[in-house]
Amino acid sequence: MPIDFKKELENAARSMILVHDPDLLIKILVRAIVEKSGIDHASILLYKPERQAYVLSISGGSLGKKIPIGFASLDKDDSLIRFFRERNCRAIFNSDILTLEEAHAVLKDNNLKERLNNLLSDVIYQMKILDTIACIPCYFRDDLLCILLLGKNRNEKKFLKEELDFFLALASNISMAIRNAQLFKDLESELDKKHQLFMRTTIALVAAIEAKDNYTHGHTTRVTNFSLQIAKRLARKQRKIINEKFLESLHIASLLHDVGKIGIPEHILNKRTVLTVGERNRIEEHPLIGATILKPIKELEESLVGVKYHHERPDGTGYPDGLKGEEIPLIASIISVADSFDAMTTERPYRPALYRNEAIKEIRKFTNLQFSPLVVGAFMELCLEGAL
Amino acid sequence: MPIDFKKELENAARSMILVHDPDLLIKILVRAIVEKSGIDHASILLYKPERQAYVLSISGGSLGKKIPIGFASLDKDDSLIRFFRERNCRAIFNSDILTLEEAHAVLKDNNLKERLNNLLSDVIYQMKILDTIACIPCYFRDDLLCILLLGKNRNEKKFLKEELDFFLALASNISMAIRNAQLFKDLESELDKKHQLFMRTTIALVAAIEAKDNYTHGHTTRVTNFSLQIAKRLARKQRKIINEKFLESLHIASLLHDVGKIGIPEHILNKRTVLTVGERNRIEEHPLIGATILKPIKELEESLVGVKYHHERPDGTGYPDGLKGEEIPLIASIISVADSFDAMTTERPYRPALYRNEAIKEIRKFTNLQFSPLVVGAFMELCLEGAL
Repeated sequence: MPIDFKKELENAARSMILVHDPDLLIKILVRAIVEKSGIDHASILLYKPERQAYVLSISGGSLGKKIPIGFASLDKDDSLIRFFRERNCRAIFNSDILTLEEAHAVLKDNNLKERLNNLLSDVIYQMKILDTIACIPCYFRDDLLCILLLGKNRNEKKFLKEELDFFLALASNISMAIRNAQLFKDLESELDKKHQLFMRTTIALVAAIEAKDNYTHGHTTRVTNFSLQIAKRLARKQRKIINEKFLESLHIASLLHDVGKIGIPEHILNKRTVLTVGERNRIEEHPLIGATILKPIKELEESLVGVKYHHERPDGTGYPDGLKGEEIPLIASIISVADSFDAMTTERPYRPALYRNEAIKEIRKFTNLQFSPLVVGAFMELCLEGAL
Repeated sequence: MPIDFKKELENAARSMILVHDPDLLIKILVRAIVEKSGIDHASILLYKPERQAYVLSISGGSLGKKIPIGFASLDKDDSLIRFFRERNCRAIFNSDILTLEEAHAVLKDNNLKERLNNLLSDVIYQMKILDTIACIPCYFRDDLLCILLLGKNRNEKKFLKEELDFFLALASNISMAIRNAQLFKDLESELDKKHQLFMRTTIALVAAIEAKDNYTHGHTTRVTNFSLQIAKRLARKQRKIINEKFLESLHIASLLHDVGKIGIPEHILNKRTVLTVGERNRIEEHPLIGATILKPIKELEESLVGVKYHHERPDGTGYPDGLKGEEIPLIASIISVADSFDAMTTERPYRPALYRNEAIKEIRKFTNLQFSPLVVGAFMELCLEGAL
């Protein structure tokens, strides 16, 4: 094995540190070993915590030498796995590497205790099935993370001690890289779980608050869907403004746009007759109450803006601040259209629902007065396609 | 430099992959270089994204050779940093390594364009201040992550080409490890932010819900504090049950214990006179309503139990299920004591507040009947210490 190849493999192992997907990592490594060394084929048995088993993740090499995919998983009690987990290899051979040749030699000597003798026989049998002549375990502390299985040299020569030592050093790099990748994956999955927890809890609490208002069942969910659809359509032209962060803020703002209604007395929210001016004024406080509730959460600054201004109108007749045209933040303009469309197409205590087409006409009619033309543009595209 | 030392340093660099704190990583590395090589002292200029500057993170070596801590930060426009960021070193010396010796030689030749000549003069001046005779940059892709600064060999000999090549290879390992550590730190800080967002949003929504009930201002916050204090005290004896996960579930359950009150009409919650049996029954629905709200959030399974059963009593006369003694989950028993203590010590529309000592007596009196003896034990300890 030429020294250049070693360097290349060392470099490959080193740069693997930044591959944070254990499977991809293994794939790259096995390919590098097979392509650049004189080895016929190689594969790796990688421990999968979720399956509590060692899975033959990748098998690479010359055609016909690939290990059948059906033979794909060994559990912890399997002989080959037990042999390495219990460090029998180190005990018998004074080395972590197991070669088929040495295994046969030791077995002939017949100096082993019966239990070990049987275990080693099993291991030899499995190595033959796996078509490997050398197994190199990769440990992290006391955990067996994977076993590297090497096929024959193409020139049919046996491995030199120096070559095996090199693979052992490589195995240490592999262990480190796998462990690192697993830690990364764990952290990413924790982050994902925390995000789910945040979203689910917010949705549940919002639904509970919404249930106080008899006439808006499912309103929040629909407004959230409409808002996100409109924003994604707008993103085709406004990629700089509408990025992942904007979409997340909009998602939360849509969920929370009516949260301020918690501060309005139930008898006003659920009144079946026409509201007095005083009652109407109370209801119109809800965007400001919502903003007040969200104020302490600094991460929701952008969402707060959506909640606070979703009843502003381009003609300046909206509330709470009477903002005009471009003064109204895009996030609020999107919620405004989504909110109005849903309100128009569902029944309210004081009026029946409009048909979908009538509601679309109304929204078009009030473009520039009540609704942002940019947002209505995207809304109309979606309506024409039947997506809304 | 003996080959064993190289191996040791290589191993150090490799195991650094699992050190996910860039500062600690640098500290370990500099110490290893100085302790094991023949170098007088070494230090690292590490880029700190939050400061947008290269900070002299660690300086190790023989006393008196330490670089003054005041000279601690170089920004991106600094000559030494610019020299490496613009890859001038590679352009002039055909190598990434800059030695003071070669720098002097090139400067004498006087073949450089004026701009480069001036830059190199500046760099030489800075190297002298930093007391370094060789600078080794660590890049990740095109980013300069850090510069390794080497002091003199203790035997005053200059570095061999082979030694410098070794340090260059080491630099590549360092880059990878630092990059990896930074990615980890970023992910951890994202997780922390998401957790804060979840907690703050839950607290804000709970406070908004609580505000509907005129007589319980601040109740949730106090109950949450009491619950956590009691649990931490109990943890001294019940370490297996009361772990981090339990405390987090309890925290959330305490925050949400009265969330079901959102489902009770305002006129009942805020009634100033004695409640009718019907009204009392409605109020007693709140633990079940709370459980129903949390049901879709599978991550909050344990918290749900606390919410659902915080009005159960060991004597079996509680609600909603009339559980007895040990049947009541610990998480609910803790909230029960915290909740009752706060309710007793604050004024309610239908009765005045008890003094603290009277409330403590009541809780002791109803041990085994209304309250879990285990929880009351911890509660009494805290009261005696004046912690509650």
